[in-house]
Amino acid sequence: MERTERDATVMKALPLSKVYQLLEPGPVVLLTTVRKGRANVMTLSWHMMVEFEPPLVACVVSNRNYSFAALCATRECVIAVPAVELASKVVKVGNCSGRDVDKFAAFGLTPVPAGRVAPPLVAECFANLECRVVDARLVNRYNLFLLEVLKASTDPAQKHPKTIHHRGYGKFVVDGETIKLRSKMR
Amino acid sequence: MERTERDATVMKALPLSKVYQLLEPGPVVLLTTVRKGRANVMTLSWHMMVEFEPPLVACVVSNRNYSFAALCATRECVIAVPAVELASKVVKVGNCSGRDVDKFAAFGLTPVPAGRVAPPLVAECFANLECRVVDARLVNRYNLFLLEVLKASTDPAQKHPKTIHHRGYGKFVVDGETIKLRSKMR
Repeated sequence: MERTERDATVMKALPLSKVYQLLEPGPVVLLTTVRKGRANVMTLSWHMMVEFEPPLVACVVSNRNYSFAALCATRECVIAVPAVELASKVVKVGNCSGRDVDKFAAFGLTPVPAGRVAPPLVAECFANLECRVVDARLVNRYNLFLLEVLKASTDPAQKHPKTIHHRGYGKFVVDGETIKLRSKMR
Repeated sequence: MERTERDATVMKALPLSKVYQLLEPGPVVLLTTVRKGRANVMTLSWHMMVEFEPPLVACVVSNRNYSFAALCATRECVIAVPAVELASKVVKVGNCSGRDVDKFAAFGLTPVPAGRVAPPLVAECFANLECRVVDARLVNRYNLFLLEVLKASTDPAQKHPKTIHHRGYGKFVVDGETIKLRSKMR
């Protein structure tokens, strides 16, 4: 799924009420930040939904990660959701640090200006969530950030994306079949 | 996968260092509590890992859930991980409240005494994590609990369990193929 540059205009707005449907299944995601004009991207699996709408998301970004300081300082990020076709790039992003590498350039990921925050969207991802830090009380102790999703968009060209889920040490499970059960749960 | 009673002795201890491998992929789980001698169980998808070891887990249990008061009062729970064969029971558990129903009896789930906490394990689940609340600072505002996993066990009879991941309104994606990539990430 190599892709040339796409700009944000091809992205379709996603109602904020549907954001939880992207993150609740637990996919590996990318997280972008920008600081002093320099964008960075990391991989992230430790995230969860906290509220439906406005959508709140909790995530853990280790203070050993280069992105940690940018997230603390700017209080903005983008969560980008990659489909399985990006798996090898996702792992490469996770295997190195923004201290040493311009990861967008190194791995052929395309930063696209976001609408509400300074960090870029990732064009190759099928969904992008523009976030701002709304509560940092648990950052010191647990590296745990609470984010509000301000704007969400999806790539209509990616029809039925399958996400990847990390089981540790580079082992990922890919989405399989979908089942539908009669549920009263949202 | 109907199962008659199994007791905790058939469960195998899981090293605490491996707990994150169960939750990081984002499966739907069951959460048990007990209060005044009465055990209850709910479904939960809003959870994430916070630390590897000792394993810390964050989860959101709405104050609209009957389990909320028990978790606040006793500060103990068990997170039980069901395989896809239990999907219909998992949904039934989510469709009603412990206010009205003894869900263990109603849905044929078997409570098994835990080793470190009062809430029961769920015998039919392939993994059970005994947890205690270690930080309740974000409960008032976000219903967000921080748990430490004190003890973990798995059912050796369930060899390659596939988990389910909720996409909203009773739509679940089941684990598909596993891929292995060369990763430096734990």
